[in-house]
Amino acid sequence: MKILVLNCGSSSIKYKLFEMESRQVLAQGGLEKINLPGSFLKITLPNGEKKILEREIKEHTAGVQFIFETLTHPEYGAVKSLDEINAVGHRVLHGGTKFSGSVLINDDVIRAVEECCDLGPLHNPANLKGIYAVQQLLPNVPQVAVFDTAFHQTMPEHAYLYPIPYEYYEKYGIRRYGFHGTSHRYVSKRVCEFLGIPVEGSRIITCHIGNGGSIAAVKDGKCIDTTMGLTPLEGLMMGTRCGDIDGGAILYLMKKEGLTPDQMSDILNKKSGVLGIFKRSSDMRELEDASARGEELAKRTEAMYFYRITKYIGAYAAAMGGVDVILFTGGVGENQATARWGACETLGFLGVKLDPERNKVRSKEAIISTDDSKVKVVVIPTDEELMIATDTMDILNGKL
Amino acid sequence: MKILVLNCGSSSIKYKLFEMESRQVLAQGGLEKINLPGSFLKITLPNGEKKILEREIKEHTAGVQFIFETLTHPEYGAVKSLDEINAVGHRVLHGGTKFSGSVLINDDVIRAVEECCDLGPLHNPANLKGIYAVQQLLPNVPQVAVFDTAFHQTMPEHAYLYPIPYEYYEKYGIRRYGFHGTSHRYVSKRVCEFLGIPVEGSRIITCHIGNGGSIAAVKDGKCIDTTMGLTPLEGLMMGTRCGDIDGGAILYLMKKEGLTPDQMSDILNKKSGVLGIFKRSSDMRELEDASARGEELAKRTEAMYFYRITKYIGAYAAAMGGVDVILFTGGVGENQATARWGACETLGFLGVKLDPERNKVRSKEAIISTDDSKVKVVVIPTDEELMIATDTMDILNGKL
Repeated sequence: MKILVLNCGSSSIKYKLFEMESRQVLAQGGLEKINLPGSFLKITLPNGEKKILEREIKEHTAGVQFIFETLTHPEYGAVKSLDEINAVGHRVLHGGTKFSGSVLINDDVIRAVEECCDLGPLHNPANLKGIYAVQQLLPNVPQVAVFDTAFHQTMPEHAYLYPIPYEYYEKYGIRRYGFHGTSHRYVSKRVCEFLGIPVEGSRIITCHIGNGGSIAAVKDGKCIDTTMGLTPLEGLMMGTRCGDIDGGAILYLMKKEGLTPDQMSDILNKKSGVLGIFKRSSDMRELEDASARGEELAKRTEAMYFYRITKYIGAYAAAMGGVDVILFTGGVGENQATARWGACETLGFLGVKLDPERNKVRSKEAIISTDDSKVKVVVIPTDEELMIATDTMDILNGKL
Repeated sequence: MKILVLNCGSSSIKYKLFEMESRQVLAQGGLEKINLPGSFLKITLPNGEKKILEREIKEHTAGVQFIFETLTHPEYGAVKSLDEINAVGHRVLHGGTKFSGSVLINDDVIRAVEECCDLGPLHNPANLKGIYAVQQLLPNVPQVAVFDTAFHQTMPEHAYLYPIPYEYYEKYGIRRYGFHGTSHRYVSKRVCEFLGIPVEGSRIITCHIGNGGSIAAVKDGKCIDTTMGLTPLEGLMMGTRCGDIDGGAILYLMKKEGLTPDQMSDILNKKSGVLGIFKRSSDMRELEDASARGEELAKRTEAMYFYRITKYIGAYAAAMGGVDVILFTGGVGENQATARWGACETLGFLGVKLDPERNKVRSKEAIISTDDSKVKVVVIPTDEELMIATDTMDILNGKL
């Protein structure tokens, strides 16, 4: 069975084509700058070679069409005919409270995703464009929606409600939803297999740390809390997002600078976080290098970044009545030993003991705590696309 | 030595007169509704009897004058002459980064407090009015300023900086300051005496839980983090304040309802928290009663309220590399067994074991954990006025 996974943004479409029997990636690439000057498709060939195909692409249907042509291209295509594609799985950002799992797309689902556009104004409309495009170009191929919010729908009320007038929850759905759910679900499940422990009874803190970042508290395989909220702004300090901040500080700054909510949102989402303090870049590799060279700004930024992860690990241990596994994933979590070390440095009281040698691991499933560490600390590379493809296959096979 | 403590709000002045040798309260009361219809002074006589004295009071100097008249009143006064008052200590809300301790008030201090008005726009101007009034009425009596923010000035940079563009910290001083510092300082110091443990090496989490509420992480007697931020809005769910919330949710709501920053601030500070969810009241006693009767709204509110305390205790244990003492103070913390229980329920993994019988204590210094609890859980009633009076005396005596 061949499954195509699409991740459509407002000006980009990423794709991966899987052969599900072997879990092999047959083709992958990304279309960039849709409706912008210089749009192009960058593909990675099976031998690892990259290829840039330039073409003016004005909207998503033409973009998907371009991807389809490339998939069947005689020279660098992966399939002879589009008929070989059994299904398409879509990453959809916001499922609101309507979706607690992946679903086969039909008119009702499309309508519900449309209704969630208000909660995910940047992403949901783009995700829908991808769905419409496939409907038009491959009307007989089943499509599945996999939501970034779905895994977090098991959070109890006391974790997802904000202490603001309740009417705003009823009227606008303002509550914590959480994101990166597909990743948290994949790694929290995978780590149980990897460690050979039962899901039931497990208390796992999954740290998805990348340019965006979120942590989830996963008890008995179910998410009971997560750091991102109504929007992806809340929680950890991220590449360019501030994470947690005094609401009073936001309002104070808006008044001082005469900012509109949109302008304020832009500052907090795009100019804050690592970029706001380190100034030079939002890239954690650059930050790590600068810190290793002893640069003060870099050390300040890292200290803030790590500290906020540490606090959430403590908070979620308290929320679950303890913790058995702390898991790192995402670009930083999988690759950056200093970040894992910095986040866990003061957690000895929880029974966390990192092994400095094991902690050097990059992008590989590994235990990085010592053998006598009460809490297992583990790296599990995330694979959201494979998870989306797997969900799509399972739905087609009637298993979900 | 007799010391008068003043706590001036925008429309109120609370006072307490101490005899410092015996720590006895000679007189106490509060003037309410300054410049509003129906202003009155409510005093508590030494025998516990309360007395209401009505008088139209238009501004703070007249208010302080009224309090002075009452203090020397032949029938219900406490001193024969104002000459007996050796000094006046003021509660001042915001000391910015200028004050990390209490100070003798002079022109430089007044100027510095004036400069902090921008950070404490509701309180600092009122605090200053009290200082000006005493300067005018008792020009020869020394005055001392005790700041709500001062104790938290020891926080390290990674705890007090927000991950927003650094220029906003430099330009406007936007950072975490924290409040209730006088209370956190008093109880964190007092608990070491009470338990007979050295301050050095101690890791104490002080939970000041009242209508407003904040938690501090106090290591070696120094605050290293606290829940309130630039403003008192951040952190715990409070009587009417929301505490932590996704900044994105604030901006989303502002756009939805077309709110200005001031209107939004009003909702988050005055209509949220317990009131926002419980709807009927912000009073924790009413909430507790309703919850005991099994009312759903009350149980939901309590679960949210307790959960946020629990998470911060976990976070601060992580921040300090462990915790030796968890301390409850403030109106709720001192009196409400259910809140203390609710906050500590899942903390067994930290070595916290509450004793249900001991936990019934109200407003009294007491250990409420079991003898074999690794972490001592303690109730210490706070006494901010006594702390202000003590600081004032110590400064007069050259000890501070």
